[in-house]
Amino acid sequence: MVRLARVGDRSVAVLAGTAGDRALDLGPRPLPELFAELDGIRDLVERTDADALPPLDTAVLRAPVVPRAMLCLGYNYRGHVPDGVDPTADDPVTPDVFVKTPNTLGGPNDPVVVPTVADDVDYEGEIAVVIGRRAHGVALDDALSHVAGYTLLNDVSDRSWQRRQSQWALGKCFDGFAPLGPWLVTADEIDPQDLLVEVVRDGEVTVSQSTATTIFSVAFVVHYLSQVLTLEPGDVISTGTPQKLSAAQDAHRPLAPGDAVTVRVRGIGELTTTFIAPPGEPE
Amino acid sequence: MVRLARVGDRSVAVLAGTAGDRALDLGPRPLPELFAELDGIRDLVERTDADALPPLDTAVLRAPVVPRAMLCLGYNYRGHVPDGVDPTADDPVTPDVFVKTPNTLGGPNDPVVVPTVADDVDYEGEIAVVIGRRAHGVALDDALSHVAGYTLLNDVSDRSWQRRQSQWALGKCFDGFAPLGPWLVTADEIDPQDLLVEVVRDGEVTVSQSTATTIFSVAFVVHYLSQVLTLEPGDVISTGTPQKLSAAQDAHRPLAPGDAVTVRVRGIGELTTTFIAPPGEPE
Repeated sequence: MVRLARVGDRSVAVLAGTAGDRALDLGPRPLPELFAELDGIRDLVERTDADALPPLDTAVLRAPVVPRAMLCLGYNYRGHVPDGVDPTADDPVTPDVFVKTPNTLGGPNDPVVVPTVADDVDYEGEIAVVIGRRAHGVALDDALSHVAGYTLLNDVSDRSWQRRQSQWALGKCFDGFAPLGPWLVTADEIDPQDLLVEVVRDGEVTVSQSTATTIFSVAFVVHYLSQVLTLEPGDVISTGTPQKLSAAQDAHRPLAPGDAVTVRVRGIGELTTTFIAPPGEPE
Repeated sequence: MVRLARVGDRSVAVLAGTAGDRALDLGPRPLPELFAELDGIRDLVERTDADALPPLDTAVLRAPVVPRAMLCLGYNYRGHVPDGVDPTADDPVTPDVFVKTPNTLGGPNDPVVVPTVADDVDYEGEIAVVIGRRAHGVALDDALSHVAGYTLLNDVSDRSWQRRQSQWALGKCFDGFAPLGPWLVTADEIDPQDLLVEVVRDGEVTVSQSTATTIFSVAFVVHYLSQVLTLEPGDVISTGTPQKLSAAQDAHRPLAPGDAVTVRVRGIGELTTTFIAPPGEPE
């Protein structure tokens, strides 16, 4: 398992040193161009003395990939029912999929602006699949071989805009509403159906649910989406959000400037997003 | 008014010669990089003897722009009611917006593959707005000044995939399902609320309706969407499709390999798309 990140204009492997994370420079090429060379990178990481490397400068981490397409699942964890769906109904037989546009992409340390026109901003902590190898019409059994690895996405949404019409796009596509990172963890040691997704809002755990409770496995989702789109290296499929814990549902209020939300998954990492007022406006 | 196109890796102005269209080379920069120089291009076009130019090689026309975001309206012409919407209801108060992903983009002469897994493929002939100048939170009165021009889009859709879930993305996002072109017509002589949109399928006119019947003007749509996304030069907003004429509705059958659909709008141009079987499969 290797952690791969973008630091400024460089790709790096992130190694655990005795006093924190270290950065092994892999050159300027974006991560998707390195996905075919992962075996060599793994060997290099194993041969490298982490403590001889410079510290990872987390302040300049950028989104690990710049996806051509960012596809998101609307209803995947049992118990999480989107607006307008009958909660007593059977599991859906196919995923409900929407798109986040490129203007939404943010780095793992980029704050998210709470837009003046948005009054019901919410978070969704999600595991994001990063495509490693072109996928078109791939069989279920072969689907995971097209996955380079996993990272975290906060699918920030404004519920008010989301609910105005049948399609959710505008609630999902405000600038910066898709912070991604902090890095990509290669798929080799991860069982994507056995990960605990947790979200911490302002110090309280508000989500805690295992991917074992998803309706659609990562393999199925890659297989299914590849019937429609040719998925390219670096494309992202976000696997949906668990329902908030019931106390968190009761206490929920829209995100406001000053709030912070952390998405964390053991084996992948933590993605903390702070919410801020638009530039020039008071908090 | 100037027609701007991409021919291979060049930008060109398209001039009407006495024996057909001619191409005035504008260099390799993509069209959005030229949008700030339109006055100079107009002057150049006026000074140029079209008949001294080489003929436009329509065979190698590409999509005039490669949008970062391609946003589409679901319900804009009075009389066209999408699935699930009550046709007797009042006009919607806000546009219903969805996204087409970058894999859908096609050039004006690219055939569209009817996917093996799609059995209810349909066309939607639309006027596409091309953003000329960055737009974020623009006022209604100022919105049209952010438009570089207009082109045509066939919003190809598979109704069966579109209807599987609440979100239409998968029905809209098959590879090549957004042929765009043939060129961009600059906005200066176009009244976007007075254009007749026609579609011809296999020789029959199936759509004929004016943009005067739209619920949301181009100015409103640019204003409204810019509240959410920062629109960048080259981004595309497709303005929705009129309903098919009633005889065409009655005669409608899904598109199949061998079919051809032309979207035409006087003052903009014609976009003809042929539908073909997947490579290696018989028609």
